[in-house]
Amino acid sequence: MPLRAFIPFKPVNPKSRLSRIMGEGERVRFARAMLGDVVEAVLSAGCAPVILATDASVECRGAEVQVTPLGLNDALNNLFREQESPLLIAMADMPLADSISLGKLIGSSAQVAIVPGRGGGTNALLLREPQRFRADFYGASFLKHMKIAADAGLSVEVIDSFRLHTDVDEESDLVELLIHGRGRSRALLEELGFSLSVQRGRVGVKRHAHEEARRGIDSGHA
Amino acid sequence: MPLRAFIPFKPVNPKSRLSRIMGEGERVRFARAMLGDVVEAVLSAGCAPVILATDASVECRGAEVQVTPLGLNDALNNLFREQESPLLIAMADMPLADSISLGKLIGSSAQVAIVPGRGGGTNALLLREPQRFRADFYGASFLKHMKIAADAGLSVEVIDSFRLHTDVDEESDLVELLIHGRGRSRALLEELGFSLSVQRGRVGVKRHAHEEARRGIDSGHA
Repeated sequence: MPLRAFIPFKPVNPKSRLSRIMGEGERVRFARAMLGDVVEAVLSAGCAPVILATDASVECRGAEVQVTPLGLNDALNNLFREQESPLLIAMADMPLADSISLGKLIGSSAQVAIVPGRGGGTNALLLREPQRFRADFYGASFLKHMKIAADAGLSVEVIDSFRLHTDVDEESDLVELLIHGRGRSRALLEELGFSLSVQRGRVGVKRHAHEEARRGIDSGHA
Repeated sequence: MPLRAFIPFKPVNPKSRLSRIMGEGERVRFARAMLGDVVEAVLSAGCAPVILATDASVECRGAEVQVTPLGLNDALNNLFREQESPLLIAMADMPLADSISLGKLIGSSAQVAIVPGRGGGTNALLLREPQRFRADFYGASFLKHMKIAADAGLSVEVIDSFRLHTDVDEESDLVELLIHGRGRSRALLEELGFSLSVQRGRVGVKRHAHEEARRGIDSGHA
């Protein structure tokens, strides 16, 4: 049986820190495109993706969907209690994930392999014995997860990959996606009119005026 | 002969984007501490560090120092023209570099191995034939370097490491150093009173009031 990769996903008002540059409808499409990229990467790494969604509106080719009303940590900790075989947790907002980078995670021989996210978070976990681990996402969850593993006497490997380390929350993260992305979320960014912009030696993103106008309609502003 | 790793370094008014939270004297110390971490990592990876400095004030145990009045690109391109054997370029502001992550770069069999920095830059390069390459730093240099390699018909490998990908320019980058750093720049941050701060689920840095006051003196403010 292939390793199951659980991908938590909350479809409502996603990626709110991108509100300044994307309307809500666009953020919904963008979050689903990133989810699609992660599902694709998980499949290409030979794992079975399971989307843990907070409502039944989500579907994604090749992935099973489980609906849970619970918050992220409760949903995962329920799962860990039931699950005796190894599993993967992968966040839905790491669209640079690919089969090679996920392969480093899956290939770890540690009892817990962890991928730190940018800014103290956790982007992915490989748990050989989920029952011995506890999820504590939000805030500096990487440090919390390292402590939980140490307290449980579990061996840990930190996976060194910028592709898995890059989560997309803020405008500056779109730069990484435009430079290193190859999947549907990057294509959507281009469709929405985003491109790289270099000003005074710093790289940012800009959006075509035409698309800005469309966004005004989408988000209900004048 | 060990592979030489050239580390460009400009000692004057370094890391100006940290001015809001560090006085100039502190930024000078901090930049040198990061340089020390990179030199240490380069040595631990079995390479010979050569600091390419814009003035003679720089010294660092274990590293040769070459002084050049030229700007970064001109200095490197002069070097590439003279150099027939392989060389490494490593930026002085990637303090999470260690022997394992540098080993991935050094172990590449491509003619050009490149480490993208955060935000479109280039943090490190392995050049098997420097004479066939050209440095074009600043702005989206990662994309420029990819094109220069392609135009020269050189094979390229992009190294996937968050430790090498993380350059420290801005306040948010200090979070990465406080979480993942192990060397002298991280120790200096702690000595200067910096620590992690979690507010509304987001991780940032804070500084002890006492140290803020010292900084006021250091930077000449009231």
